[in-house]
Parts: sequence; C-alpha cells; structure tokens
Amino acid sequence: MPEADAVAAPHPIDIDYRPTDRTVPTRSKERARYDRELVHRVLDASYICHLGFVRDGAPVVLPTLYGRIGESLYVHGSTGSRPLRAAGARGAGEAAPGLPVCLTVTQVDGLVLARSAFHHSINYHSVVVHGVAHQVTDEAERRTALDAIVEHILPGRADDSRRANDKELAATSVVRLDLDEVSAKIRTGGPNDEPEDSGLPYWSGVVPVTAGYGKPLPADDLDPAIGLPGYLAEWSS
Amino acid sequence: MPEADAVAAPHPIDIDYRPTDRTVPTRSKERARYDRELVHRVLDASYICHLGFVRDGAPVVLPTLYGRIGESLYVHGSTGSRPLRAAGARGAGEAAPGLPVCLTVTQVDGLVLARSAFHHSINYHSVVVHGVAHQVTDEAERRTALDAIVEHILPGRADDSRRANDKELAATSVVRLDLDEVSAKIRTGGPNDEPEDSGLPYWSGVVPVTAGYGKPLPADDLDPAIGLPGYLAEWSS
Repeated sequence: MPEADAVAAPHPIDIDYRPTDRTVPTRSKERARYDRELVHRVLDASYICHLGFVRDGAPVVLPTLYGRIGESLYVHGSTGSRPLRAAGARGAGEAAPGLPVCLTVTQVDGLVLARSAFHHSINYHSVVVHGVAHQVTDEAERRTALDAIVEHILPGRADDSRRANDKELAATSVVRLDLDEVSAKIRTGGPNDEPEDSGLPYWSGVVPVTAGYGKPLPADDLDPAIGLPGYLAEWSS
Repeated sequence: MPEADAVAAPHPIDIDYRPTDRTVPTRSKERARYDRELVHRVLDASYICHLGFVRDGAPVVLPTLYGRIGESLYVHGSTGSRPLRAAGARGAGEAAPGLPVCLTVTQVDGLVLARSAFHHSINYHSVVVHGVAHQVTDEAERRTALDAIVEHILPGRADDSRRANDKELAATSVVRLDLDEVSAKIRTGGPNDEPEDSGLPYWSGVVPVTAGYGKPLPADDLDPAIGLPGYLAEWSS
C-alpha cells in the first residue's frame, strides 16, 4: 500500500536523522528537515547555542559556545559549572549517567510583516538536538574539542593562540552531545496573508535581518607591531 | 560587622529581583545583575527568546517570539502547541498548574580573542527568567499581549496591521511568565589574558558583533501605492 507508506514517511528524501516523536513538530511540519548537510550548515553558521537541561525538576536554559566535529557537538565550561558536573564523568568500566539536554541553535533571517497581526512571523533557520551529554575524559579528544570550539568562533584562530596548558585543561569540563535525534526547522519567503486580506492598506513584506562584524579593536596592551591576522582582515575597515 | 554584611550582600545596590539559588551563578558571579532597568533593557533589545520546559522528564528548548508588558512576558503559539497546552488553562475557581519554564534572551556583542585559547570569550548581554508560565484566558489581556508581541518586533506595527479576529484569537494560545526570579548577565571589555602571556605574538582584542536590518522587501502582491511606513523608513536604503 504505497499510500500508507507515503503517510508514514512524509519526508521521502534526505532523511539522515530519523524523525522521532520529539523531533516531529505538532504544527508547521513542512518546515522540519532531517538532512545532515542542512543540519551541519545551520550548526556551522552560528557559534552560540542555548543549552537546556533539568535541575531539581525545573528547566534551565543557558547560552554557551559550541563546536562541531563530524557528528558530535562539544560545549565546555568550568569544572565547577553545575550542568557540566551533572553530565558526570565516566569511571573505569563504569557507565556514565550523562545529562539529558536539548541544544538549540537559531539564526534569524528576517521579520515577516503580514497584513494581519496573526500571520506575522520570522524567517529563520534553527536546529534542535535532543540527547544525553557526556563528559569527555580522553585528553586527546578534550584538546581536539577545545580547538573545535575556538575554530567554530573564528576559523584559523586555534593555531594562532596559546593552547590550553595542563592546569587550564584540568580546570575545563568538555561535554559531548552526539547528533542523532536532530531536526532543522526553516521558514523562508514572504508573508502568508489570507486572500481576503490582500486589499488591506498595510505594507507587507520582509525586513531582512543582517549580522556582521565591526572593525576589530586591539587589546590595550597589544604590541603595535602585531598586525591583524589574515582571518580578521576582511573586517578591518 | 559591615565586612560580613558586604560578603553576604555582594550586590548592595540595584537589587530589584531577589537573587535565588537558581539565579546566582556558580562562577563569574560578578557578571550577574538583578536590577530591573537593566533586565528590561536587555529584554526589550531582542524579540527572540529560547524557551525551555520539561517534557517526559527531558528538556526541550525552542526559539519563540515574546513581548513584555511591565513585569510580565508573553509568548504565543497555536492552541495545538504542546508546551502551550501544557501550560494549562485556569478553570472557573480552579488553580492552574502552569508550566515550569526557563526563558532566556541573549544578545552577543563581540568576540573576545585572548592570546590564550583558555581566555577566549564572548561579550554579551543575557537575561534568564525562571518561573511558571500560565495560559492567559482573559480576552482583553490576550489581545493586549498579542499587540505587545507585534510591537516588540517592530514598534508602531500593531496599529498598522489587521488585529486578530475572533477565529484567530481562538486558535492562539497566549502564555504569561511574570518577572520575579530573574537575572541578567553581562560581559564587556577586552580579553583577560594571564600577565605571563602578554608578550605572546598573537593578536588580541575584541571583534564587535553587529546586527541590523536590510532594505525591506515588499510582498509580491503589495499594492505599489502603499509606501514604506514610517517605522520602516530608516531601513529603506
């Protein structure tokens, strides 16, 4: 029965991440996407995520930096950080409990102004990752992850900085969340006004939202002989 | 003992929102602020928040629009939306259970490039609100809240659009979260490198992050006689 199959699989192509009850939205299902290339592209275009976890039964959402290596995301923080401590460390031969998290990345692309207040919206790209975060204990993976976080902010920067020494590494928690239960959500295009509203005398359309960088400001004590590195040159004027 | 008092109350002024265990960070305590004016300013400078809640014991974080009226934040969505449904409706004489949420707003102001990877950071303003969200059932409050959400995106727009009709209003859930357990967090300034790193040959400083709007794009079917409204004029070129 092809029809039944079609209903059961509304996304016949580009399903790299298997949709689950948590990643299929209750509404605007047509905006949800599960293809790996798109998910990676949205993740790589930002560097700030909002990380949610549960503490004492209540939700907590904190902004934090992240990096990506293949199918893993990494966040870091102080070893004193409550959520990262809660992610637990894997003891020898011991299963790590881990910390259930939801990591969300959102990029706003435009304000959608419809004639009706009801159809006002936002054009955006977002990715929501559900899963269990685990502390990374392997030193090589910890170092690679920290590089990935710096490179995620600014490609080229990790090699052009002093990497963490042993003391700094010991003070840093690194947590990994694998990309498994993942969805992207996208809204593009103009307003979807009701046909009967098309004659109303209100401006309608999209106001693009732009993001960029200003001229880099050197630290007060920077040696003037140190010029802007190549990876910052494009923002120098 | 003034010294002990000073330790017990590290924020002697501008404490409008009483710090709680949830709003005092475990680290970088000096970045946390509890004054109303600052909290309102950060909330009013953005229009997208990340709303966290707990579903089946696991955290969920979704981006959504919000508005503010005084000491209340409002978010809206379809009546079919799972979290908004979970926020519950108040029956006659019945206490509403509400939905424990964490609503976080983050604005990134700059990339902080230290000589050491360890001291790389982000300049930002953020506000985290903990509380219990309740569905709004009063029709006047619902209408005022929807106006506030539109005005929050673009001041002047609510009066220049067709407001929700009864059918649209019935299809919309409005949820209120009062500002009570709230903190702002701010990082400003340059990198905090270790003194022994000051001679390292790496550029250090801040790359400002800018946000703005592009030229408004009219809807395909917009009557060309309808010019840009005044509240969009500054972005017209």
